[in-house]
Amino acid sequence: MNMTQREELMKTLHECMEACNYCYDACLQEDDVNMMANCIRTDRECADFCGYTEQALARDTPFAEELLRACAVICRACADECRQHDHDHCKYCAEKCEKCEEACLAFTA
Amino acid sequence: MNMTQREELMKTLHECMEACNYCYDACLQEDDVNMMANCIRTDRECADFCGYTEQALARDTPFAEELLRACAVICRACADECRQHDHDHCKYCAEKCEKCEEACLAFTA
Amino acid sequence: MNMTQREELMKTLHECMEACNYCYDACLQEDDVNMMANCIRTDRECADFCGYTEQALARDTPFAEELLRACAVICRACADECRQHDHDHCKYCAEKCEKCEEACLAFTA
Amino acid sequence: MNMTQREELMKTLHECMEACNYCYDACLQEDDVNMMANCIRTDRECADFCGYTEQALARDTPFAEELLRACAVICRACADECRQHDHDHCKYCAEKCEKCEEACLAFTA
Repeated sequence: MNMTQREELMKTLHECMEACNYCYDACLQEDDVNMMANCIRTDRECADFCGYTEQALARDTPFAEELLRACAVICRACADECRQHDHDHCKYCAEKCEKCEEACLAFTA
Repeated sequence: MNMTQREELMKTLHECMEACNYCYDACLQEDDVNMMANCIRTDRECADFCGYTEQALARDTPFAEELLRACAVICRACADECRQHDHDHCKYCAEKCEKCEEACLAFTA
Repeated sequence: MNMTQREELMKTLHECMEACNYCYDACLQEDDVNMMANCIRTDRECADFCGYTEQALARDTPFAEELLRACAVICRACADECRQHDHDHCKYCAEKCEKCEEACLAFTA
Repeated sequence: MNMTQREELMKTLHECMEACNYCYDACLQEDDVNMMANCIRTDRECADFCGYTEQALARDTPFAEELLRACAVICRACADECRQHDHDHCKYCAEKCEKCEEACLAFTA
């Protein structure tokens, strides 16, 4: 992974973290929060892990591959959860998670 | 803060982090999640910050006082939220948050 | 704090987190690491806390003011440490920390 | 993983996090910090990830297996690094990392 690739990957992780945290916040304000319980949970997991991974990349962690492998699985699960809901914040989050999963997988061959 | 005091404080922060995460998890499984939305939110905030603060103390952070001052406010708010609910996990969490607030304040005079 | 202000603040925190992690990584590769021990330490503290605060803002934490107050102190300390060294990464980091301290203080009046 | 196993695993992760942070702090105060640069780095990586994983388990994360798989690799690397040094804090840290690696692997078959 060269510097440009790392910057790009960090940006993708960051956008995913923001989308997940935004979706988490919005889910907690929905009329029917029961429906969103799993989405709240996966949003938090995905936001926290993308944020963690991005910061680890920023310090050039020697464990990028391990982190990205786990991150891809978490992003996939969060996308799958968000895809089940019609809220705009869920659709947007699913897109960002899918993009992030793809970016992570590119470095874990 | 001597070594024994630090160990004791870390233990208190840790128990609060566990109680908050447990309450968060339980709230998301309640019959009426809408009622618990604010509790879910403060549980996460409090769990994350207590966990952060404990880890910072473990590496002898030079910023203990700043972290503990913020931590006390967050624990107080989480206790106040949990006190509004009758679930056992909320009552237990409120107790741990109050104990943790008190422990934090003892080092921020 | 409105949406635009929040976005701007998150960007500033993010740049500070990146600069601190970059400086941390570079300090560990310097010829004289002994000279950089305190800088390594404050870089980590500042990077971790700016990253934490940014993520908390991303989920619209109710505790922004408490976090920003602590963050300003940590950024100030990291800037003061970095100002004592002539390495480019330290100078750059000091600039980002000072900018971040200022941004944090603007919301903690 | 039942409740007792989870508690046990969290305790092991916690002891590893503490040992790594203690070793990190002690390495930064050694006479020859250059010799310890890699140890400082892996200590931080391992402390942060063990702390993260423990907190995720505390909220019953659905991604335990992914986290534990990555955690085992990081603990192994930190143990290998610490084994190269004669300081008591390094030897102690290596023991805790090896114990933690083993505990993680038990749940990632």
